[in-house]
Amino acid sequence: MREVPDSPLQGWKPPDYEVDGDGKVVGAGPGPEHNWSRFGALDQRGTFNLLTPERVAVAARLVRSGKRFSLALPIGTPTPGGYRAEPLHLYRFAAGDAVLGSGRGGRNPVSDDYIVMALQASTQLDGFAHVGEGPTLYNGYWAGLVTAAGGAQRLGIHHLATGIVGRAVLLDVARTHGVDHLAPGFAIGPDELDRTCEAQGVAIGPGDVLLVRTGHLGWQRSQAADERAARSHDHAGISTRAIPWLHEHDVAMVACDNAACSVVPPEPGDAFLTWHVAALRDLGLLVGELFDLDELADDCAQDGVFEAMFVAAPMPVVGGAGSPLNPIVIK
Amino acid sequence: MREVPDSPLQGWKPPDYEVDGDGKVVGAGPGPEHNWSRFGALDQRGTFNLLTPERVAVAARLVRSGKRFSLALPIGTPTPGGYRAEPLHLYRFAAGDAVLGSGRGGRNPVSDDYIVMALQASTQLDGFAHVGEGPTLYNGYWAGLVTAAGGAQRLGIHHLATGIVGRAVLLDVARTHGVDHLAPGFAIGPDELDRTCEAQGVAIGPGDVLLVRTGHLGWQRSQAADERAARSHDHAGISTRAIPWLHEHDVAMVACDNAACSVVPPEPGDAFLTWHVAALRDLGLLVGELFDLDELADDCAQDGVFEAMFVAAPMPVVGGAGSPLNPIVIK
Amino acid sequence: MREVPDSPLQGWKPPDYEVDGDGKVVGAGPGPEHNWSRFGALDQRGTFNLLTPERVAVAARLVRSGKRFSLALPIGTPTPGGYRAEPLHLYRFAAGDAVLGSGRGGRNPVSDDYIVMALQASTQLDGFAHVGEGPTLYNGYWAGLVTAAGGAQRLGIHHLATGIVGRAVLLDVARTHGVDHLAPGFAIGPDELDRTCEAQGVAIGPGDVLLVRTGHLGWQRSQAADERAARSHDHAGISTRAIPWLHEHDVAMVACDNAACSVVPPEPGDAFLTWHVAALRDLGLLVGELFDLDELADDCAQDGVFEAMFVAAPMPVVGGAGSPLNPIVIK
Amino acid sequence: MREVPDSPLQGWKPPDYEVDGDGKVVGAGPGPEHNWSRFGALDQRGTFNLLTPERVAVAARLVRSGKRFSLALPIGTPTPGGYRAEPLHLYRFAAGDAVLGSGRGGRNPVSDDYIVMALQASTQLDGFAHVGEGPTLYNGYWAGLVTAAGGAQRLGIHHLATGIVGRAVLLDVARTHGVDHLAPGFAIGPDELDRTCEAQGVAIGPGDVLLVRTGHLGWQRSQAADERAARSHDHAGISTRAIPWLHEHDVAMVACDNAACSVVPPEPGDAFLTWHVAALRDLGLLVGELFDLDELADDCAQDGVFEAMFVAAPMPVVGGAGSPLNPIVIK
Repeated sequence: MREVPDSPLQGWKPPDYEVDGDGKVVGAGPGPEHNWSRFGALDQRGTFNLLTPERVAVAARLVRSGKRFSLALPIGTPTPGGYRAEPLHLYRFAAGDAVLGSGRGGRNPVSDDYIVMALQASTQLDGFAHVGEGPTLYNGYWAGLVTAAGGAQRLGIHHLATGIVGRAVLLDVARTHGVDHLAPGFAIGPDELDRTCEAQGVAIGPGDVLLVRTGHLGWQRSQAADERAARSHDHAGISTRAIPWLHEHDVAMVACDNAACSVVPPEPGDAFLTWHVAALRDLGLLVGELFDLDELADDCAQDGVFEAMFVAAPMPVVGGAGSPLNPIVIK
Repeated sequence: MREVPDSPLQGWKPPDYEVDGDGKVVGAGPGPEHNWSRFGALDQRGTFNLLTPERVAVAARLVRSGKRFSLALPIGTPTPGGYRAEPLHLYRFAAGDAVLGSGRGGRNPVSDDYIVMALQASTQLDGFAHVGEGPTLYNGYWAGLVTAAGGAQRLGIHHLATGIVGRAVLLDVARTHGVDHLAPGFAIGPDELDRTCEAQGVAIGPGDVLLVRTGHLGWQRSQAADERAARSHDHAGISTRAIPWLHEHDVAMVACDNAACSVVPPEPGDAFLTWHVAALRDLGLLVGELFDLDELADDCAQDGVFEAMFVAAPMPVVGGAGSPLNPIVIK
Repeated sequence: MREVPDSPLQGWKPPDYEVDGDGKVVGAGPGPEHNWSRFGALDQRGTFNLLTPERVAVAARLVRSGKRFSLALPIGTPTPGGYRAEPLHLYRFAAGDAVLGSGRGGRNPVSDDYIVMALQASTQLDGFAHVGEGPTLYNGYWAGLVTAAGGAQRLGIHHLATGIVGRAVLLDVARTHGVDHLAPGFAIGPDELDRTCEAQGVAIGPGDVLLVRTGHLGWQRSQAADERAARSHDHAGISTRAIPWLHEHDVAMVACDNAACSVVPPEPGDAFLTWHVAALRDLGLLVGELFDLDELADDCAQDGVFEAMFVAAPMPVVGGAGSPLNPIVIK
Repeated sequence: MREVPDSPLQGWKPPDYEVDGDGKVVGAGPGPEHNWSRFGALDQRGTFNLLTPERVAVAARLVRSGKRFSLALPIGTPTPGGYRAEPLHLYRFAAGDAVLGSGRGGRNPVSDDYIVMALQASTQLDGFAHVGEGPTLYNGYWAGLVTAAGGAQRLGIHHLATGIVGRAVLLDVARTHGVDHLAPGFAIGPDELDRTCEAQGVAIGPGDVLLVRTGHLGWQRSQAADERAARSHDHAGISTRAIPWLHEHDVAMVACDNAACSVVPPEPGDAFLTWHVAALRDLGLLVGELFDLDELADDCAQDGVFEAMFVAAPMPVVGGAGSPLNPIVIK
């Protein structure tokens, strides 16, 4: 076998902090805009806490026609701009096997199937174990609490099992710009958000679920023949400049029709994960990625109603760092 | 290596039917209670069709307090009475790796995780490719349309992507019987369903989602120390005698807090899959399994309200035969 | 969710053959060059049978210096020209987790890892369930014996568990041509094989393991920066015209340093699988793919010895259609 | 969802050691019997180094009849006493699918299959990243070099890609004792090893591969009906007291027909991993587990020859902590 070079090493010195019995890094603090301790010193849910029963009840009252939309990408067709290996869907036994005399259900054709997938491979929710900075994750929990052996010992996605239920507001930035899709690299700052709210005549309030449409995902899916475009990671998305806006408006969640929610490549001065750190680690903000918003957006453009009930329940993987999501919007 | 005996073979003769260009077995028919062709000759959704916008809107109006319940089992703790291998949750990289100098996010601790799981391994929705009889699946589709290579070429779970949204009614059969849990093998027939409705003061109507509580799952989880009980497949469940009742009441879905929905072992005269054939193949009925109903049931017993809004969105696996489900009930 | 179009169907008529109790298609026959029934009516091993103890003993006597070579590609670096998803190597727990206080071995750092891989994803052995033609696989076994539910009920790779042990002969076609690597599409016919044997001064005999070097794999690995070349499926390889030669010389195995063993694209008149059908289905010939021959070839060129002992033991996956292989050559 | 209790935490203080640029823990030392630095300060192969070309050549000369034995368990039948989930073998497409008109190879039936398995789930080789003690693995490498993100950055199993080739000696301890299988918990110390050598008339030398038969695996496989016995982790095995003997005799490898190689439960005074630490971390000794030795043992008992050529090539998983193994013994 030809040589596989050893990865270079650089030595290691133990860090200079300690971790307390709650799993918090002693003395560590968040960035300027943050929700640390806001929902309790041991909170593991961040802005999920904003989804109070009262707001859920209000959201349910937004349902009028009962028309519903799935914002999920199908699992089994190529994921536009995805960062992970494609999910692998395999049959353990298939109904057709019975026709050939080797089925598993005696005279009955039966099927059972498996999935092997990155929990962040398709339409998904980031968990708070997904991205941190320095030694900390959201609310000051130590990054070292997340390991292969233990999973996310704190901040696991299963803490969000009761589902993200609330008022969704579609902000169709692309349509407001009069374009099919915003150009890759286009950064959506606070002005864009305000301008879209105004153009659509909607106001954003605490606990809202923002669905921010760039048009990118639909466009990228249509580029399948242009392999380079189909696989590019560049896309329009939320700017780090919008973080204070998201905090002030106290939204529960922000989701985009792109792979990273934030703009890629990042704006000058930002690193690739700057936005994620501000959103996940500091705000404890629910972040959705690869949301397919086109069908909903067409409907909203037609009836002029940009708010609806939103329900998205993650897979309650104990100690998980993310989850595929099939978000349902009900108008 | 010690010899692995070849599996016995019995020869094979080609079947005597043909399959038409729609994937239907020519001349095949359903059992006595059925919905074949009711929703269209090419329908792939069965009673999912009963979840009309009107009914969705009505269901949303059931929301009062906004309190919500997840009916899912956690993924990562042993599944009581499950038929499949336990899901395997593995980290591709973990935030803690960054503490050791080998993280994937540069100075940022980042985590990504994978799941390997039977789509029917935990709280789940049966797809219509899951069980058939003779050569047919629901609506007369050929069992041979489901293969390893093609997946479910018809009746794939992705056709249910917009989610099961409607009015849920909890039928707490165990509590009506004054017991913690019904004994394994206890069959819930039409009388039991009627009696529970009456005791609870609820009526069942078209498009409803029935959540039938046996108390089994909670009990079985508590038997972890008694390995035999914890792994047993026997449980109380729905009787085949209840099929006409389910059909008459035109429910959209039935789900139980056990592994098979139907009673196990089956009643005398029934084979193991008799109930599933009648429900899935003939009625095209949505079937839920391993629903954890205890917390909801306690709440319903307290406030006397047994109906609520129900939202459950399957993973849209193209050509899938089933899906894990995190069903959300909102009161 | 945007619509996923149903796959087109064409109807189905049952085939007009029957399968007997041995799993054989009644009345079916092989191509012109074949080994059906040669090793017994129920043989499942093909030319593996040529690896008799006598030949194994002779092969062992070829060992002189004791120098050994692994012909495997590393698992975990991109596979040049591979047809399957890359293997996924994931840690269930890692020794480093213990440093962070969450290891699985108490005070001991311990590691356990998983692999998810196509059995044909890297250096590999084709099983006889891998490719057939019409209704048959090797020795007349019915293709329908291989299903998701049953695996390969006959011809499973586990029948080759005692390993391919014999005399290896390197045929360095590229070097004989005076080139680094043969051009993609270059077809190695009987003349090329004879010419290489002559140039190297070797004779091929019954039960030999032929290692045919095109130079392609090493070249393709070096093209990592040229993504198109690195992913191309085209390569030099064995011609269908060489099948009678392989049969006459009664070799036990043929393996190449490319992804398909045969030339790709196939020669005019051949379909993509023509060569595989002739080799696997008709001859029951052991076929190796993605063998990395460069290091061995350099050594042989230096000492002028092109024969050696060969040992390659497949993973004994019961009912498997292929296996990763780490072939060892000992000189 | 019912509450999943958070795992208890205990706080964390950074360790008081440093790691140098070679990945070594500064100032750390091995146990009393060890091979650290013996094969070089940066050695990653331990006693694999003893398998010199000269010894390989000598081993090849042991081949007389050419009869060969696979010591592997089949993959796909339950693993006796295994510690990991059973391997999952799934077809991506199956030849039979072509009979139903949905195959992947056009008119040709083709099959492709996947494996999902713990690399230590069946007959296997421990890598040196598998078990350490305190902060160190073999040769003083830091445990923290093995993470989900990086794999085993040192000591990966791929460093053993050229295969374990040498002289195997079967030590049939059970037969020497006149029993079918040694009782679970029976510890094989230096006396037992000497006594078996003497009874068999063999001498152990540097670089030998010891195959130590307890009879346990064959017995445990036969207990399938007695589920408790079939799943028990207790078995006869090597004692920690034998470590100096193994070191003095300078063997390259020791393998047993049980799940842990060492005796389970461990002898008084030993912890569960004491033996593994001494073997893997200190000696850098190759350790094989779940070797099926019964067929070989019968043959050796018959002809009185207990030595043979041994060839076992791990899957070259880059950064792997272990590998399934199909060890071939050639007499």
